[in-house]
Amino acid sequence: MKKLLNKVDDALADSLNGFGAAHRDLVSVNLEPRFVTRAGGTPKGKVALISGGGSGHEPLHAGFVGTGMLDAACPGEVFTSPTPDQMLAAAQAVEAPAGVLFIVKNYSGDVMNFEMAAEMMEGPNATVLTNDDVAVEDSLYTQGRRGVAGTIVVEKVVGAAAEAGADLAACKALGDRVNAASGTMGVALTSCTVPAAGKPTFDLGADEMEMGVGIHGEPGRRRVKIMAAKEIAAEMVEAIAAALEPKSTDPVILLVNGMGGTPLMELYVVYGAARRLCEDRGLKVARSLVGNYCTSLDMAGCSISLTKADDEILKLWDAPVHTAALRW
Amino acid sequence: MKKLLNKVDDALADSLNGFGAAHRDLVSVNLEPRFVTRAGGTPKGKVALISGGGSGHEPLHAGFVGTGMLDAACPGEVFTSPTPDQMLAAAQAVEAPAGVLFIVKNYSGDVMNFEMAAEMMEGPNATVLTNDDVAVEDSLYTQGRRGVAGTIVVEKVVGAAAEAGADLAACKALGDRVNAASGTMGVALTSCTVPAAGKPTFDLGADEMEMGVGIHGEPGRRRVKIMAAKEIAAEMVEAIAAALEPKSTDPVILLVNGMGGTPLMELYVVYGAARRLCEDRGLKVARSLVGNYCTSLDMAGCSISLTKADDEILKLWDAPVHTAALRW
Repeated sequence: MKKLLNKVDDALADSLNGFGAAHRDLVSVNLEPRFVTRAGGTPKGKVALISGGGSGHEPLHAGFVGTGMLDAACPGEVFTSPTPDQMLAAAQAVEAPAGVLFIVKNYSGDVMNFEMAAEMMEGPNATVLTNDDVAVEDSLYTQGRRGVAGTIVVEKVVGAAAEAGADLAACKALGDRVNAASGTMGVALTSCTVPAAGKPTFDLGADEMEMGVGIHGEPGRRRVKIMAAKEIAAEMVEAIAAALEPKSTDPVILLVNGMGGTPLMELYVVYGAARRLCEDRGLKVARSLVGNYCTSLDMAGCSISLTKADDEILKLWDAPVHTAALRW
Repeated sequence: MKKLLNKVDDALADSLNGFGAAHRDLVSVNLEPRFVTRAGGTPKGKVALISGGGSGHEPLHAGFVGTGMLDAACPGEVFTSPTPDQMLAAAQAVEAPAGVLFIVKNYSGDVMNFEMAAEMMEGPNATVLTNDDVAVEDSLYTQGRRGVAGTIVVEKVVGAAAEAGADLAACKALGDRVNAASGTMGVALTSCTVPAAGKPTFDLGADEMEMGVGIHGEPGRRRVKIMAAKEIAAEMVEAIAAALEPKSTDPVILLVNGMGGTPLMELYVVYGAARRLCEDRGLKVARSLVGNYCTSLDMAGCSISLTKADDEILKLWDAPVHTAALRW
């Protein structure tokens, strides 16, 4: 294993310290327990959005803390749920009498720990569970569909609503709605390597790919020979469309997300193919995002996400955002 | 070789088409010959900044076309200089009677072709040659130092000055000054794989790294066993400081740039180490940038860049920028 780390055990703390130092104007990093909040705190009266999950998916979630998106993020160890005390400490730190909305990707450990934190905390709170991964129904670490890159769309859209003053119930309802309108599928060309394991999570042949892979390297739908980008995109868009059943007049948000080891040049090839496939279905690609946003350490591969949008969702997507990873 | 491509020969055109489709609000992509301009054109009376070079370094340079930075970019084939006719067509397309400033990374092919374009074009023009790579004096594709990630700082700072109305001579002088104030060194943990070659450009042992690597996989200073991130950063910061000789009171811009295959989590570990090393030298890290900006296809590794700044440079760095890859 070759990685840019000091000691394996220090990887997360070192990375968080670097992140905090690079973005002092935006975030405060707390190390014991670990959570990241907005440097200026949560605006008075605003519902606070808190997300979190295992590390190794950067910039998810800490990279989305800031105006117009999250109020706090709780990073667990690599591919490991954060603990309830992290979430509880974050929920206290944001000081949000208007309530806390937890945004949780559907993995058993995360769900259990966020539930525990929600029970322990005082004050109003609610949870949006994201499960946008259409590849498989149950998986290695979860029952039901996995929460993956579509979570970013949920965080952006609900973040804008919260910033504009939406109350807790409205944020929760909107989050559920955007999640239900979002579908994602991923593909891996290589495994990732978890620092503590020191070797690839799974083996892939020199000409193979894992179609429908999870963001921790969990198995997908099938292992097949590598195909052309447009064939890969076709299978992914087909699977997402089968799950979302978009009407041919729906405007969509199209997110092509890199898994960490795939260069931007290739992501734009996939984006071009995916966009054409959407347009062939009569869908209007109203907004786009291309880059590394929900990664799997150093995995080569990508995911495609579609969100069926409407005027409200597009307006919230367009609202200003000022975070380390997303800014407009 | 596993890459997200259709046909190898179509990789660049497919990627550019995807890029253009994803960022229609920002850029126009011309395919014959290949160049990218601002969607809205160059503002009247403004000096136009044009850069370019081989592809495979995305988002460099097309990702920096937009308000506050470049007016056009000319992408060559992967790791291959664009041709004079691309540059000439871009120089004509920007319609800038105030003049064209070419920003050229110091590689023999690029230098020769940009010179030819400058000779052929009508109207005032000047060239800033970037050579920020302190690793080696001469290299595989060039005489003198190579131009690498520091080019982004030149493009950002001069872009802001041009946007604010600086004339051609002032832009040229500023570009030369920022280049001279910038130093970069890179390290590779893996080779990149050029699509047309289909196999890694060079071989690295399972525990080796190339210290001082070029952005096309050119040899650096030495091939050594992998070290801790802070030791790697120490060697790089030391080499840059030896070249730049910053005064201990100088504010610096610190850029930690991923080579394409290294996840953000690791880049922040390197950033944290590099920042501490700067501070130990008494340098004030006034501005920071961390991410994949000047890549080498799928190479794992990173570069560290330092720019000795002053109030003028920092003010121009902070000026608004609206491009696909950089926005604030």
